[in-house]
Amino acid sequence: MSKIPYRTYLTEEEMPRQWYNLRADMKEQPDVYLHPGTHQPITREDMLPIFCDELCDQELNSTDRYIDIPEEVQEFYKIYRPAPLIRAYNLEKALDTPAKIYYKFEGNNTSGSHKLNSAAAQVYYAKKQGLTSLTTETGAGQWGTALSMACAYFGLDLTVYMVKVSYEQKPFRKAVIHTFGADVIPSPSDTTEVGRAILKAHPGTGGSLGCAISEAIETATHQKGCRYVLGSVLNQVVLHQSIIGLESKIAMEKLGEYPDIVIGCAGGGSNLGGLMGAFMKDKLDGSRPQTDFIAVEPASCPSLTRGRYAYDFCDTGHVTPLARMYTLGSDFMPSANHAGGLRYHGMSPILSKLYHDGYMRAVSVEQTKVFEAAVQFAKCETILPAPESAHAIRVAVDEALRCRESGESKTILFGLTGTGYFDMNAYTSYLEGKMSDYIPTDEELQKSFDTLPKIG
Amino acid sequence: MSKIPYRTYLTEEEMPRQWYNLRADMKEQPDVYLHPGTHQPITREDMLPIFCDELCDQELNSTDRYIDIPEEVQEFYKIYRPAPLIRAYNLEKALDTPAKIYYKFEGNNTSGSHKLNSAAAQVYYAKKQGLTSLTTETGAGQWGTALSMACAYFGLDLTVYMVKVSYEQKPFRKAVIHTFGADVIPSPSDTTEVGRAILKAHPGTGGSLGCAISEAIETATHQKGCRYVLGSVLNQVVLHQSIIGLESKIAMEKLGEYPDIVIGCAGGGSNLGGLMGAFMKDKLDGSRPQTDFIAVEPASCPSLTRGRYAYDFCDTGHVTPLARMYTLGSDFMPSANHAGGLRYHGMSPILSKLYHDGYMRAVSVEQTKVFEAAVQFAKCETILPAPESAHAIRVAVDEALRCRESGESKTILFGLTGTGYFDMNAYTSYLEGKMSDYIPTDEELQKSFDTLPKIG
Repeated sequence: MSKIPYRTYLTEEEMPRQWYNLRADMKEQPDVYLHPGTHQPITREDMLPIFCDELCDQELNSTDRYIDIPEEVQEFYKIYRPAPLIRAYNLEKALDTPAKIYYKFEGNNTSGSHKLNSAAAQVYYAKKQGLTSLTTETGAGQWGTALSMACAYFGLDLTVYMVKVSYEQKPFRKAVIHTFGADVIPSPSDTTEVGRAILKAHPGTGGSLGCAISEAIETATHQKGCRYVLGSVLNQVVLHQSIIGLESKIAMEKLGEYPDIVIGCAGGGSNLGGLMGAFMKDKLDGSRPQTDFIAVEPASCPSLTRGRYAYDFCDTGHVTPLARMYTLGSDFMPSANHAGGLRYHGMSPILSKLYHDGYMRAVSVEQTKVFEAAVQFAKCETILPAPESAHAIRVAVDEALRCRESGESKTILFGLTGTGYFDMNAYTSYLEGKMSDYIPTDEELQKSFDTLPKIG
Repeated sequence: MSKIPYRTYLTEEEMPRQWYNLRADMKEQPDVYLHPGTHQPITREDMLPIFCDELCDQELNSTDRYIDIPEEVQEFYKIYRPAPLIRAYNLEKALDTPAKIYYKFEGNNTSGSHKLNSAAAQVYYAKKQGLTSLTTETGAGQWGTALSMACAYFGLDLTVYMVKVSYEQKPFRKAVIHTFGADVIPSPSDTTEVGRAILKAHPGTGGSLGCAISEAIETATHQKGCRYVLGSVLNQVVLHQSIIGLESKIAMEKLGEYPDIVIGCAGGGSNLGGLMGAFMKDKLDGSRPQTDFIAVEPASCPSLTRGRYAYDFCDTGHVTPLARMYTLGSDFMPSANHAGGLRYHGMSPILSKLYHDGYMRAVSVEQTKVFEAAVQFAKCETILPAPESAHAIRVAVDEALRCRESGESKTILFGLTGTGYFDMNAYTSYLEGKMSDYIPTDEELQKSFDTLPKIG
């Protein structure tokens, strides 16, 4: 019936063999990382105690446009990829819109999200370096699950610091991580100095990604053969996630399509950075100047739309390098918003720079509106989306409705990063009318901005 | 690297447009259903108050080899199908086996299982007939979820009677069903006469599929514009699920493969009946006489391996027709085995007949051994299997290990019916060493057999 199929899968032969490094095409580079103590540009040597050697190189590599995906990582990708590009015919029909809606679905793996793309790469490099264990943080639990899967596959030990509010809201997430053989510790915890300090300063806190990062780094740097890995924000993660956009672009080319609008939820920026990379390339080189890139963030944690573009710590404990990025201040403690993966005070320096330079825009949305879109989407498309992903759905729906008003037949592509099977408490809260929207006041944000480090 | 890809997807054009009706090729037919009151062969008219008209026809149709899949159902299938055929390279490697292991993965949809294949068909026919609501039972919750998804899509109301033990073990399953707009009632309940009677006879019971079926039928037959739908056991369900085997066969043909062994978990028989259909055809017509078909059931609910081949009720309340099948007796109350979907006292009459006539064999496995295989599989293949599906994994692993002993390079195909995201209590119980195996004694079974109706 339909000329364009519902689902488009690449063959193994069509799958990308290289990641795309967006920085190689940026007119201006993100500002360099600074050492947290000296405020001097950070060196490879500064990073080596924290990250694997090869990941340090990738973090600092702003010149190589394409980077080979190691054979072993390609093999791992083939277990669960390619991810389908799906035409949302039923959503289009329900919205009665002339827009064409596509989504790249990254949730068809047990981590429930795109996070596995970078987990596979990071664990492989750790293994190659002869390391025996890793530490990390997890918010919604998707990154922790992804990493536990990759560690089980490559044979490394793993300790996951899980944001306490997610740990409590998602009892089964930690069970999945356990199944893959990793340890899970709710953060802030008393297992680290920085955790104990945060607990003292904020008793009863639900934690944040920033806290959990501090704890994971402290643990990694105190153990032999151990390093820290991060699931978002970093340049290396945006690099690994470029597979999302590369696959999407190949699939759309096969269909004779190109997006007018590219939409992704943005917490630390890993998903949107990955999805938009291959398309942003065309905007940067002038061949597709009109493409509209939209980052969607929760109104409760609005780093792009209400944050400052400034140097800040990536963590609450102030042990990481300083990155220039859009930030709410590393002390910002988001409310117990259910979209755990978007509870981060900062934003990828790459995305921050592109946003600052006007290559993309950002929209913040309230939680109840997000779940409204999530339920509508589930009923039409038979996939129960993760709350994080549903932020992108919300804006895709809004853009499609705008097309209905204007009569434009735009092509919309959004990233459906994952599934919501471990978020049923949030869905129940929404369905029972018990979910509230929280928007930080200007005063709250100002208080947090006041803690930004004074640089230069 | 590998000539055969990890994942094989059919294109939309390659997807089957007809279901395969296994009965058309069986040398002998399953015995006819009998009226529960008169013990006379049941007629279409007897069934019409319970089932949709067109489903009654399909139930009784033993002659048409292929039945067209309605366009609307084909469109629905395209939203979440085709399901991939996956080569388990990593499991093969972990087992160091010369066997080639393939699995057909039906869990890549929000129902988490193959159940959506029949749900789509049944809801479509109900809609076509002008019905406004449906009732059903669910064990593990997968059928209930699938049906709620199909009802949301086609716009029908739905009430789900969920086996109480699953309702309690899987709090988030009902939340998913709610999200798709259906009602969920733990069974046995006080909303029906039969439920109240069962509660009185077995106070504190965890329920069974048999109970839940009785309640759903009572409710359906007392409401205008309402019918009952069943997710397993029936001929019509095996028909709809034939899509699994048809797709598998096409995919294997593309790879130049044919299975020596076909393995599926068997509760009511919907998955295995669907998976094996297209291959059993070749055994029945003599072109592939050697194929080994294995039904895997839990040792706690061993209908094929320890049951009687006799006429029995399909439900505990004795309102359904009598079917000749392998049964433990409709009064059999399985222990609180975590594989909720396999807690059924009977077995599809089609599978029962084929088993009785020697076309297939059956194996029963203990729960802890099943979870051992599930965890191994998850770590190798990065998919967390449903406990039901893990029964098939257990036997696939055992057969592959047998090949290691014998040096044979057999081709194994098993059905990975679904994912275990809502079964984390069971996984946790296993990982913490708290899971026990329960095997009914001969005395217990005898007591249950004594309740079998006396026919002829």
